Amino acid sequence: MAEAKQLGGAGLRGQSAGSTALCTVGKTGAGLTYRGYDIKELADKAQFEEVSYLLVYGKLPNQAELDAYKTKLKGLRGLPQALKEVLERIPADAHPMDVMRTGCSMLGNLETEQDFSEQTDHIDRMLAVFPSIINYWYNFSHKGVRVNVETEADSIAEHFLWTLHDKQPDPLHVKVMHASLILYAEHEFNASTFTARVCASTLSDIHSCVTGAIGSLRGPLHGGANEAAMDMIEQWKSADEAEEAIMGMLARKDKIMGFGHAIYRDSDPRNAIIKEWSQKLAEQVGDTVLYPVSERVEAVMWREKKLFCNADFFHASAYHFMGIPTKLFTPIFVCSRVAGWTAHVMEQRANNRIIRPSADYTGPESAQWVAIEDRA
Amino acid sequence: MAEAKQLGGAGLRGQSAGSTALCTVGKTGAGLTYRGYDIKELADKAQFEEVSYLLVYGKLPNQAELDAYKTKLKGLRGLPQALKEVLERIPADAHPMDVMRTGCSMLGNLETEQDFSEQTDHIDRMLAVFPSIINYWYNFSHKGVRVNVETEADSIAEHFLWTLHDKQPDPLHVKVMHASLILYAEHEFNASTFTARVCASTLSDIHSCVTGAIGSLRGPLHGGANEAAMDMIEQWKSADEAEEAIMGMLARKDKIMGFGHAIYRDSDPRNAIIKEWSQKLAEQVGDTVLYPVSERVEAVMWREKKLFCNADFFHASAYHFMGIPTKLFTPIFVCSRVAGWTAHVMEQRANNRIIRPSADYTGPESAQWVAIEDRA
Repeated sequence: MAEAKQLGGAGLRGQSAGSTALCTVGKTGAGLTYRGYDIKELADKAQFEEVSYLLVYGKLPNQAELDAYKTKLKGLRGLPQALKEVLERIPADAHPMDVMRTGCSMLGNLETEQDFSEQTDHIDRMLAVFPSIINYWYNFSHKGVRVNVETEADSIAEHFLWTLHDKQPDPLHVKVMHASLILYAEHEFNASTFTARVCASTLSDIHSCVTGAIGSLRGPLHGGANEAAMDMIEQWKSADEAEEAIMGMLARKDKIMGFGHAIYRDSDPRNAIIKEWSQKLAEQVGDTVLYPVSERVEAVMWREKKLFCNADFFHASAYHFMGIPTKLFTPIFVCSRVAGWTAHVMEQRANNRIIRPSADYTGPESAQWVAIEDRA
Repeated sequence: MAEAKQLGGAGLRGQSAGSTALCTVGKTGAGLTYRGYDIKELADKAQFEEVSYLLVYGKLPNQAELDAYKTKLKGLRGLPQALKEVLERIPADAHPMDVMRTGCSMLGNLETEQDFSEQTDHIDRMLAVFPSIINYWYNFSHKGVRVNVETEADSIAEHFLWTLHDKQPDPLHVKVMHASLILYAEHEFNASTFTARVCASTLSDIHSCVTGAIGSLRGPLHGGANEAAMDMIEQWKSADEAEEAIMGMLARKDKIMGFGHAIYRDSDPRNAIIKEWSQKLAEQVGDTVLYPVSERVEAVMWREKKLFCNADFFHASAYHFMGIPTKLFTPIFVCSRVAGWTAHVMEQRANNRIIRPSADYTGPESAQWVAIEDRA
């Protein structure tokens, strides 16, 4: 206890706040597993729906289970009229994560979780409808278009791209989205997941848990690194220009987004996967700038600082090549991570004690009341 | 660290998750202080606005500061048209805490915190507008009335009652509401406040922090105990009937809401204060049932189990005597605790490290990928 006390104020780093069977992060310095499965294998071989099923339902689905699951999700993409009307009242200059947070919260008013026995139905609904929420708002507020959100898309990955661009997407893009959603689906007790678990520990409803998690993911220290990386790399017109700029930033000790990690020590296992997809997309679009710039930044950061790319860095160029506006990068993270968040909520509920830590008091020992007319 | 590990899974009880100068809870087994001031003195002598100012701005205001603060708050009660239209789309059978959560989240879309230098303006706005949000929705959804939320009320306490009943409230009721809002304003690292701090630690915006906190307070293990106490005590027609029922509940080991506390050992210092106000209100309305029932339940619980009333128990009858619908009890808690939550957000931001604990892994060591056609 004394030692735990000393760690107070330092973000609970290295302190256990519970147990989980969902994920290991950096156990060997580099690895990431979901329920024991290596992330590389999942991203290479699975559809996102196999991974969300694994997280939420506890096992990889067989073909019949996967078919039934995807059919169910496909039927859950529609937006209630009241939710559409709320989204239409959110201005174009709103923060897209505020839109996600409000959309999820409003959904909870219309389709309230009355009992925990309903939890997986609400989880399936959120997985299916979140792409509809963000892209309905985006198309309405930015283009004045009420996009059809009940698409024929085969998957969540395809549904996201379809509702964004209002047309059936390129098959390569769908593949990349599957991998991307898999890479972002789960990451142990990160701040947004921990938010969801603290909320769940009061036995609150699942929309409250996810709404809170979205709010935490919104913070620039958590989600948003891929957006910041995009804002950085798109400034440069060549790899040489990027190298010169990065060297200047390092000299000035500027923060460079998309590098290093709080837990991983040697590398982020997600980087190689998304980097390969980014390269394929660069070839498809005939890019000669953004991908070489990204590769050079990676090389310089390693050469100068031994800092490695995390999952976010090559996501920036990959998303960009698929025509995804930068401001929607973090909402995609939500569409994926909702699988991990809700699996953690289920786990917290199954073995719950309210999460209520203590604090070190640093204020005055006691203060003497002073009548208002005598106050300074 | 080893010892911290052992506490894992037990809700971080007794572990420090940071430092605060805002509050002590149960330091002497019974006491509660806000910035060193004893809760009894604050509830007896202060207006709620003096306490919210103390929490947010760090000192008790002098007369000129208090006047300026109350004038500012009075000017911030109005609802943006888009927010009214959102509230009108939330059905009457929604959970009122979902309404608060959605109202706060929507406000964040319309009046986004762009920079932390704006934080106190957004805090003042939330303090002023939260009663408007819940009572606009309540009156519209339950009575079809678009209530005027820009009242002439002198205080947040009066503004709440005025917008609820759409008329200037009884002066005694305003006094009780001041005391009640003061009692609920702050309580160290409880689950909703901790949610707000975890969110703040990602450097997210203040509406995300408060939206998340509302979601956690919604949980029946946290807020809502006064509603549950009301549901219980209003069943009984006399003190004798209540005693018989309580004895039966104890024999069946039923949970009895409004008693005991995770931190306090001997008594909850807030109970004596709200109990006295409940008695005065009972006299005012000529009650001969609810207050005697409440007193008897208190006596029986102490006699049989040495369990004391917490802040919530006599709040039930007090609110009821003022004509407040039971379903609005926890939203009042929000209108008060937003002062504490936001003061904690400011404190977290001033000395931040992202809150990212670890977890004990209990899942499979490694799992072997199986092709879908070979899965059970």
